Amino acid sequence: MKFQKNNFTEKFIIKNYFEKLNFDKKGTFKFNNDAAYVNLTNKKYKFAVTTDTILENVDFFKNDNPKSIAQKITTVNLSDLFAMGAKPHSYLLNLCLPSYIDSKWLKDFSEHLKKIQYKYNFYLLGGDLSRSNNLIISSTFFGYIDKKLNVFQNKLNINDEILVSGNIGASKIGLEILKKNIIVNKNLSQYFIKKYLYPLPCKLGSKVAKLSSSMKDISDGLIGDLNKMLNDNFGAKIYLNKIPLNSKTKKIIHKNYIKLEKLLNAGDDYSLIIISSEKNRSKIEKIAKQNRIKISCIGKIISKKGIYFDSYVNINNIKEYDHFT
Amino acid sequence: MKFQKNNFTEKFIIKNYFEKLNFDKKGTFKFNNDAAYVNLTNKKYKFAVTTDTILENVDFFKNDNPKSIAQKITTVNLSDLFAMGAKPHSYLLNLCLPSYIDSKWLKDFSEHLKKIQYKYNFYLLGGDLSRSNNLIISSTFFGYIDKKLNVFQNKLNINDEILVSGNIGASKIGLEILKKNIIVNKNLSQYFIKKYLYPLPCKLGSKVAKLSSSMKDISDGLIGDLNKMLNDNFGAKIYLNKIPLNSKTKKIIHKNYIKLEKLLNAGDDYSLIIISSEKNRSKIEKIAKQNRIKISCIGKIISKKGIYFDSYVNINNIKEYDHFT
Repeated sequence: MKFQKNNFTEKFIIKNYFEKLNFDKKGTFKFNNDAAYVNLTNKKYKFAVTTDTILENVDFFKNDNPKSIAQKITTVNLSDLFAMGAKPHSYLLNLCLPSYIDSKWLKDFSEHLKKIQYKYNFYLLGGDLSRSNNLIISSTFFGYIDKKLNVFQNKLNINDEILVSGNIGASKIGLEILKKNIIVNKNLSQYFIKKYLYPLPCKLGSKVAKLSSSMKDISDGLIGDLNKMLNDNFGAKIYLNKIPLNSKTKKIIHKNYIKLEKLLNAGDDYSLIIISSEKNRSKIEKIAKQNRIKISCIGKIISKKGIYFDSYVNINNIKEYDHFT
Repeated sequence: MKFQKNNFTEKFIIKNYFEKLNFDKKGTFKFNNDAAYVNLTNKKYKFAVTTDTILENVDFFKNDNPKSIAQKITTVNLSDLFAMGAKPHSYLLNLCLPSYIDSKWLKDFSEHLKKIQYKYNFYLLGGDLSRSNNLIISSTFFGYIDKKLNVFQNKLNINDEILVSGNIGASKIGLEILKKNIIVNKNLSQYFIKKYLYPLPCKLGSKVAKLSSSMKDISDGLIGDLNKMLNDNFGAKIYLNKIPLNSKTKKIIHKNYIKLEKLLNAGDDYSLIIISSEKNRSKIEKIAKQNRIKISCIGKIISKKGIYFDSYVNINNIKEYDHFT
């Protein structure tokens, strides 16, 4: 069913698609107010706050499944929260909707959000609806974290180890397949495209925060994000053969469909970079194992600025991905 | 000076224009992290959260002064906070910037934000930068409010009085002058255009919250917002001659440049609608006087649904402004 434009008011959309996402929390006033109240009575915690915007033709395509778009806007934010050692609490949603958005889109989008909310245990606090030419979604997430804990992104020590969760590169290969720059069989194609369309945040961050010097999620590529962590103060030595790659990804590289260097600079893996003292590695590995998360030590922090492979070849000439330029 | 596009990185923009807005608060990590920490140690307070998006060609025009755009994105949110009885604490900023945004724009925009932050005492927690075709700004604001206080938007009682702060309509006249639908002399023109470009939030809300049944700021027109407060449960009788109008606005209406009805449905006055028991009126008036804020009683809540003038003529046929449709 397509709604008549007249009926498609803000009130109607909120009532029919988004009210269910408040999980009956009192402070949201069923989204009837222009603001919401939120209260953390537990004295042990403080809030972490993060916000991200995703845009049509930049972070997703016009005809992408609304479930994929719901997955992306939550994953970019949840990933930031986990990397700050926080657990999700609640979120706000600013939707700029073009006229092609119909009831089916809103249903699929909001149902998928609900599923993700149940999975990670957080609720919708409120938001804002606007009309626009392109689909643009901003979201602000709140997480709670031990009051005494401060997770940094660039507080490092020489000889700290560089650990990476999961695998890298599969999302980028999925994007290249969608763009028809890489052509592979149907099975491989579906596998990689799913990695691109339905990225998952890595929950490990909130569990190992106490054991790490610094953490960051990979949203601008492994090299780009590692470079931000080094912050022009340190360097990194990378063991190229330790970069965690799925067997399917290795196959793609082996067949020369894409170069490893390109995957090191690819955007959205949402793996976690954990930099920590060598003495904590076994503890981190144990926690990762308990949570069935793969973890790999890919290098260490050095005093000489720049990023180097095993062979001490500076790879700074690999262009850092800056999502803004 | 125009920057070379290459130099105009996210890091550069944050460092040069936005870092100053964090007011050296520790939890912001100088915007080097993907998330910020925020802590309200005071046991007396809870948070109010609100978020709004403004778009080029909808809420402002492409060549509007960046100071005006900074004023609008803060006023829409501060106005919501005050109407919830909250005082501003901090905010997040999501900027989608088209290529025409240059260093002068960023300087003027961020300097004006700084001025507003000093005025109302809040700081920037963090945000997000993206490239886009049109300028789109989302912002999420945090305010603090007495833990025990709940300000509603539609908890009303029969015979409650309807109070309005300040004057209404001037912003709409400013917009009509800019669109050349109204032509007046330079003095009047400047006066009204300023009201449209530089709207101010009404601080009264946080001071009279305890005395009111419900409050709401006017962002969708007096009638539209009052109608939301009635929420299909009540009606309102309006004393037309009590609608607060500036003498200049009266002149414009008197000369038939615009009808009062149009101003009753005009968007952005950011006056406050306070609905309260008759017995609280003198207390509210006293607080308003202390704060040099004009306050007018324009009507009362009745059981018969709909909005009526003194003469009991239903004015529901005046189309409610819905910013979404």
